[in-house]
Amino acid sequence: MSQSIRVAVTGASGRMGQTLISLVNASDRMHLSGAIERPGHDWIGRDVGEAMGGSALGISVTDDAQAAIAGADAVIDFTAPVATIQFAEFAASAGIVHVIGTTGMTDDEIAALDPFTSKATIIRAGNMSLGVNLLTQLTKRVAAALDDDYDIEVIEAHHNQKVDAPSGTALMLGEAAAEGRGVKLSDVADRGRDGITGARKKGDIGFTAIRGGDIIGEHDVMFAAAGERIILRHVASDRTVFARGALKAALWGQGRAPGHYDMLDVLGLSDPA
Amino acid sequence: MSQSIRVAVTGASGRMGQTLISLVNASDRMHLSGAIERPGHDWIGRDVGEAMGGSALGISVTDDAQAAIAGADAVIDFTAPVATIQFAEFAASAGIVHVIGTTGMTDDEIAALDPFTSKATIIRAGNMSLGVNLLTQLTKRVAAALDDDYDIEVIEAHHNQKVDAPSGTALMLGEAAAEGRGVKLSDVADRGRDGITGARKKGDIGFTAIRGGDIIGEHDVMFAAAGERIILRHVASDRTVFARGALKAALWGQGRAPGHYDMLDVLGLSDPA
Amino acid sequence: MSQSIRVAVTGASGRMGQTLISLVNASDRMHLSGAIERPGHDWIGRDVGEAMGGSALGISVTDDAQAAIAGADAVIDFTAPVATIQFAEFAASAGIVHVIGTTGMTDDEIAALDPFTSKATIIRAGNMSLGVNLLTQLTKRVAAALDDDYDIEVIEAHHNQKVDAPSGTALMLGEAAAEGRGVKLSDVADRGRDGITGARKKGDIGFTAIRGGDIIGEHDVMFAAAGERIILRHVASDRTVFARGALKAALWGQGRAPGHYDMLDVLGLSDPA
Amino acid sequence: MSQSIRVAVTGASGRMGQTLISLVNASDRMHLSGAIERPGHDWIGRDVGEAMGGSALGISVTDDAQAAIAGADAVIDFTAPVATIQFAEFAASAGIVHVIGTTGMTDDEIAALDPFTSKATIIRAGNMSLGVNLLTQLTKRVAAALDDDYDIEVIEAHHNQKVDAPSGTALMLGEAAAEGRGVKLSDVADRGRDGITGARKKGDIGFTAIRGGDIIGEHDVMFAAAGERIILRHVASDRTVFARGALKAALWGQGRAPGHYDMLDVLGLSDPA
Repeated sequence: MSQSIRVAVTGASGRMGQTLISLVNASDRMHLSGAIERPGHDWIGRDVGEAMGGSALGISVTDDAQAAIAGADAVIDFTAPVATIQFAEFAASAGIVHVIGTTGMTDDEIAALDPFTSKATIIRAGNMSLGVNLLTQLTKRVAAALDDDYDIEVIEAHHNQKVDAPSGTALMLGEAAAEGRGVKLSDVADRGRDGITGARKKGDIGFTAIRGGDIIGEHDVMFAAAGERIILRHVASDRTVFARGALKAALWGQGRAPGHYDMLDVLGLSDPA
Repeated sequence: MSQSIRVAVTGASGRMGQTLISLVNASDRMHLSGAIERPGHDWIGRDVGEAMGGSALGISVTDDAQAAIAGADAVIDFTAPVATIQFAEFAASAGIVHVIGTTGMTDDEIAALDPFTSKATIIRAGNMSLGVNLLTQLTKRVAAALDDDYDIEVIEAHHNQKVDAPSGTALMLGEAAAEGRGVKLSDVADRGRDGITGARKKGDIGFTAIRGGDIIGEHDVMFAAAGERIILRHVASDRTVFARGALKAALWGQGRAPGHYDMLDVLGLSDPA
Repeated sequence: MSQSIRVAVTGASGRMGQTLISLVNASDRMHLSGAIERPGHDWIGRDVGEAMGGSALGISVTDDAQAAIAGADAVIDFTAPVATIQFAEFAASAGIVHVIGTTGMTDDEIAALDPFTSKATIIRAGNMSLGVNLLTQLTKRVAAALDDDYDIEVIEAHHNQKVDAPSGTALMLGEAAAEGRGVKLSDVADRGRDGITGARKKGDIGFTAIRGGDIIGEHDVMFAAAGERIILRHVASDRTVFARGALKAALWGQGRAPGHYDMLDVLGLSDPA
Repeated sequence: MSQSIRVAVTGASGRMGQTLISLVNASDRMHLSGAIERPGHDWIGRDVGEAMGGSALGISVTDDAQAAIAGADAVIDFTAPVATIQFAEFAASAGIVHVIGTTGMTDDEIAALDPFTSKATIIRAGNMSLGVNLLTQLTKRVAAALDDDYDIEVIEAHHNQKVDAPSGTALMLGEAAAEGRGVKLSDVADRGRDGITGARKKGDIGFTAIRGGDIIGEHDVMFAAAGERIILRHVASDRTVFARGALKAALWGQGRAPGHYDMLDVLGLSDPA
């Protein structure tokens, strides 16, 4: 077993921040070295464990992000684009790993990370779940391997409070299937199937959305031909999967050259350049 | 083991007729005693086994339906409404079992069977699959037992040549769920879910249709609440299931009082009157 | 909507007790009227909400079970057999509903409840999940409806820390299947299938146990024949399902005659006597 | 659409031979040019379509394998090792594609093909199903990508006449998982789980076998961690999948350099050398 790495967590008081801190604390491969919040937050100066309603962890919440990052081997960051760009600068100065799970970054904001990728080991993904990233990659490969004798259907199920259908992840899987097959998803997507539809059009990629109860998220990509079906399936059973993916990324980044990586790199599944 | 019963099959040259004859022939609880076709059919007078392209079965195809029915313990009939009513009259004269798998009968045609139910043991169903009939009954019971904290979704999958969605069987299951819950399906059906749908409306019954490959027919009725799901699932793997259900009905009817029964009676699952 | 009922919870400091209190508190059909712990417990006298680490609920934890029960419409009780028998006596004195989720009661301990069933409305089950109780009942019915052309398999999946296989619930489902079919489970159980097994023996009930990750509990009962399969499936996605079942029982018991009921009564699925 | 290729089929009278001939005949990318049987077979000289009990196909069954192979673009061969080696020699002489689905070849018999791989385009696999080959490859990749926080289980279901458990394909999938993870399957296989097993041992690969009805073959490889599961699933719904895979191979081989290929090459999924 290698030695335990030091991890700083940003947005320490948020739901994701607290989840990250709990998981870092429970890991035997890393330990918490810093808990960062914005200046003026009422947790500043308090022991983060106690602020979270548990026992003391010996780490005070700080608004000095630069110092906390300088004292860490990795910073895990699910905050907002502007803060994330600032943290990337600090990570570059310190020459450490910066795991970015921040969502909603524009192309410009992503480009603003570029100056820091020569010194920081940045790992960034829109969805930090190992499983979903893996499923996306597999979907592309299988779609490329099989011809259109194999009908592709993306089937997803979510809780009854979800307001859109199909899910963003289902669409991402559909994009991966279309890319593997060398077509544009918008040309082949078949959504909301109902009524007298006629026979299925060859080459279409179908989407169906199931809603009920408290289902966290389940996605199937089915490739169905005469005589056989292949189904690639992901089931999320716990909302902590995103935090867990970030921890894996932090470990994977240790000793890795500076640069801009994603979860497929962490999984060792990137397509060859 | 009770003695082998004598079975006559109508529409002997058709796809279903031939399937029935093959299954009767393979059974050790029944044997073929008659093979009926309409007058003028070119199989009349030929050995039915040979006409089917196999070895002789010792039964010549006949257009004398009355005599063939009189010499049987049960007649199995997947033909057309007018013929079926005539066969019911012959079955009543002979006092035997009449298994009716004929589809597309109007209410008037069904009522035309009434005079014969005092002497024939008529077993009739729109779908002769034991499993689908059972699933329909279970769906009704479960929908009655659970309140609307349990979201109901009917999910079906069929081959890529199917032209309508959802399937007739899916709608039948939805009707059963609505009946169990004491609502009208047309008031609560949620079909073709796509786009910004908003949160799922409590009490709705959702339908989704998956299409691909050569899937014969799969139906799930899901009851999903916070913390748990119950799923009632039927998978058809062979188009002979309808014929097999008819054979079970023919056996079940032996020694049974005349009347008008359905597959739920055969299954012992009828609701108490 | 009927008025909110008053609920007392025993074992208030335990994991199940706290879950019950949270759920009662979140319900609009009931409210917490009492929180009971054993004499000497350090929560006695404290506000139960604060003791649980949240905000005050206005109910102090008490060791006077009799008074707390007398002031309630229902007491929900997941404790230990001896305590449960004492609580049943108090529930009988008060003439209220006593929901018992206590496990491990011997036949003698169950018999010790008898004197109280003429005055208390006791609802007791080894597993309070609505879904599992429903699945058990359905399994028995389907096994009774189908003959042994339908092979029965019970398939379960649980997390990687579970030490026994198959699960207790899987065995309960197997018992229900055997009872429905009129056989003894011990005569037909086929467990741990591996190696050169020979063809499946007709009439056997097979069990398989899948282990991995943090799967809370999934159970399938499959009835597989030539041409079709029926699968009855239960998926637990949240450990609160047992508490939720108890709350449903407490509501169902209101206005119900004293007696000894189980979860099938709550579901309206008891077999006719 | 390229022009139709000429296909010769060996073992023409066998179940697989007849299936191949029917599929070749139904394809618009190939047509039957030869039907081969062993000398002395009673089909020799007869029209193969008529011998199969259908209408004439204009191809007489021949025992002159060399001539039939010389007049084809591909020969598809599911026979026996000794015959297969002879056919490979003929295929090399003709410089055509030889698709080998023959099972049970020893290492020596496989080595005996070597001299012919400089002139024939040989495509050989123990299982010609595209889907199973693809699933095997995916299993290895996923096992390599994920660490042992992901518990691996191989779950298979087959008909009630199967005599061994787990299936050969399940074991092949287990081997692929073990190879991906860099362990020996025999060190980590957990089969026939039953009784007081203790917690699941980290790193184990579990196997479970479900038996019932007429299930043709279903295989799941599950990777289960805290919070998520990935499942790779294959469902065979028709025994013709093996023949269909062979036809794909015959087409894929056209214009390909001589050599010894397998189904992963056909799928474009071979690991880089």
